[in-house]
Amino acid sequence: MARLVMKFGGTSVGSVDRIKNVAQRVKKEVDAGHEVAVVVSAMSGDTNRLVGLASDVAALHDAREYDVVVSSGEQVTVGLLAMALQDLGVNARSWLGWQIPVKTDTVHGSARIEAIDSADIIARFEDQQVAVCAGFQGIAADNRITTLGRGGSDTSAVALAAALNADRCDIYTDVDGIYTADPRIATKASKLDRITYEEMLELASLGAKVLQTRSVEMAMKHQVKLQVLSSFEDLPGTLVVDEEDIVEQQVVSGVTYTRDEAKVTLQQVNDTPGVAAKVFGALADAHVNVDMIVQNVSEDGKATDLTFTVGRNDLDPALRVLESLKGSVNWKALVPDPDVVKVSIVGMGMRSHAGVAQTMFAALAEKGINIQVISTSEIKVSVLLAEEYTELAVRTLHTAFNLDAA
Amino acid sequence: MARLVMKFGGTSVGSVDRIKNVAQRVKKEVDAGHEVAVVVSAMSGDTNRLVGLASDVAALHDAREYDVVVSSGEQVTVGLLAMALQDLGVNARSWLGWQIPVKTDTVHGSARIEAIDSADIIARFEDQQVAVCAGFQGIAADNRITTLGRGGSDTSAVALAAALNADRCDIYTDVDGIYTADPRIATKASKLDRITYEEMLELASLGAKVLQTRSVEMAMKHQVKLQVLSSFEDLPGTLVVDEEDIVEQQVVSGVTYTRDEAKVTLQQVNDTPGVAAKVFGALADAHVNVDMIVQNVSEDGKATDLTFTVGRNDLDPALRVLESLKGSVNWKALVPDPDVVKVSIVGMGMRSHAGVAQTMFAALAEKGINIQVISTSEIKVSVLLAEEYTELAVRTLHTAFNLDAA
Repeated sequence: MARLVMKFGGTSVGSVDRIKNVAQRVKKEVDAGHEVAVVVSAMSGDTNRLVGLASDVAALHDAREYDVVVSSGEQVTVGLLAMALQDLGVNARSWLGWQIPVKTDTVHGSARIEAIDSADIIARFEDQQVAVCAGFQGIAADNRITTLGRGGSDTSAVALAAALNADRCDIYTDVDGIYTADPRIATKASKLDRITYEEMLELASLGAKVLQTRSVEMAMKHQVKLQVLSSFEDLPGTLVVDEEDIVEQQVVSGVTYTRDEAKVTLQQVNDTPGVAAKVFGALADAHVNVDMIVQNVSEDGKATDLTFTVGRNDLDPALRVLESLKGSVNWKALVPDPDVVKVSIVGMGMRSHAGVAQTMFAALAEKGINIQVISTSEIKVSVLLAEEYTELAVRTLHTAFNLDAA
Repeated sequence: MARLVMKFGGTSVGSVDRIKNVAQRVKKEVDAGHEVAVVVSAMSGDTNRLVGLASDVAALHDAREYDVVVSSGEQVTVGLLAMALQDLGVNARSWLGWQIPVKTDTVHGSARIEAIDSADIIARFEDQQVAVCAGFQGIAADNRITTLGRGGSDTSAVALAAALNADRCDIYTDVDGIYTADPRIATKASKLDRITYEEMLELASLGAKVLQTRSVEMAMKHQVKLQVLSSFEDLPGTLVVDEEDIVEQQVVSGVTYTRDEAKVTLQQVNDTPGVAAKVFGALADAHVNVDMIVQNVSEDGKATDLTFTVGRNDLDPALRVLESLKGSVNWKALVPDPDVVKVSIVGMGMRSHAGVAQTMFAALAEKGINIQVISTSEIKVSVLLAEEYTELAVRTLHTAFNLDAA
């Protein structure tokens, strides 16, 4: 007997038939003798409908009222799934965020979970009762409903699994696991049986959209064993686990990419102390996150090129901030370029293998792909390229690191 | 300065534009210096959508989960209306049933309100804050959401008005008041300025659909002054008040009708003691409510005709119950007739005026309308007629009691 948390996203509960299908999945685990808590999102499309209503009523709206409106979506799915389970003869009841309760801070719209009281749910496991819990929502100290922000249901599931001391947290989604690369681009990509928290965290923040970064962080912190698997097919998925639970570690586990960044170059900036501090200080004040940074060595000691990336949605605000600095920082030209892609390789094995970055650069060079910016961490190397090379670069690296399926 | 409860039904909040219109109405009262609590229903159509989802998931469903699903409708409207008010510069916040809290019994799907804690809402009136409260919902002692059943938002509004000790409870709806008869039938019907609780109660239970019976009972019990008025036009409505607040009392205040009943006749029943007890006892055991009853005097002391009415939806179950009695109660024929209408006249003045029933019967007789069953109370007379006479009977009585507008 194990204690499981099963999480189903909006697509998995997007219709009455799919909710009945989820109930069958849950029943299978109950019949196998497991204690089960389910976490569900709103029916796909429902959250967008509710967000649309809120925007139509008032362009600038109170985040507390927004949370009241959008949290109604999960309220519908927990009730329906509890009914569907009962209809199959499974003992089940729904739990809203305020009923459990899932206590959060008061940052409405993107609240953080502070504590989950799991005593009631655990007590009911004794009666083989399935807890059907609303994801994405909680309650603040002032007794008002909060939401965790988009994708927050993954975090709800992991936090609940930690509070329940669950043996595993299964994230059911519309893909059947974590792949060595996006299979739509790298046709030889294969599903990973296991991946470490650290690698998953890098993949999630570098473009893989399967799991929300915060949920992986939380799983790592609380040692919650995660599994990503398909809600439509009955196949094993990918386990996200501790490094020591992986017997044979690849040097590189996956190749990923994101088109969410844009490049900015300040050409011929005065190479005097304090310039970088001024530029990046002003961007930080405007809440623009800067990711990759490279500053060329100046040849004459007087002027240099400063290149960095920001979120593509932040490009316009970033340019406005920079223009406002024109008086205090001098440069020859400000060159924005949104047509870039960040391609990354991720793997725990890099720590003990020399030459990984070198292999990456050589493979790209051989295909004539120019690297614009480089950034590295202990377990990843990212390069910024012209966007048109996205597919070629991903496939080239997938082959270069021996990830192509036989 | 007055303290007001304003209640808006599903049609009044059926779209974003209508919600904005409601916000304007509320702002007007706030600008006039009043303390305002608003009670809203779900957007029209939304409750039906949610009920449909629940039925599609499971034909027989847990009433507790049903309440979780359908109560999400008002959750959306309170959030949206609070936003719309804030957008007009009005201080407002939403309150769900469990937040106020509106404490109810545990009869899910048709719960009764037991207590409302209004302290928080009253405290916030000091800051000119409008309380936007979800109608139709409450919370039971086990911390689960309950609903009051269809039309329960009227009851929510009246109960809140009582708890707030409000000066008036305004029920905004899609008609502009209580009429002397259905204006679609009696073109000379006119709107009443005032009506007593007792008359309104009779009208509500005899077919007038404007107010829910329970809400009128509660208003009478707690002496809440009710007003029924249009949410679309800016006109005074009808006040429902104590008898002493009405200066000039009509003998008959209104004529109403309902097609919701069906007639059953047991012909030539044995006229022996205990037969009626057997028949009506068996119907009561099957939860079939019997309304009007008439038993003819038997001519020979041996057999008689027993006629009564049941809800039209209860006709089939009633007939099955009666067939099952065939062994212990003897009759010659069992004759069901669903094609009947109950037409009623209601008025406080009847208590002091003799001959009202006589005037009614004479007027109907003059038009050749045969009366099948009669029932009376202190302030109403109801007659059962063949359904085809509905319009003629209503118009005839409207004229006979001098209700036709000049």
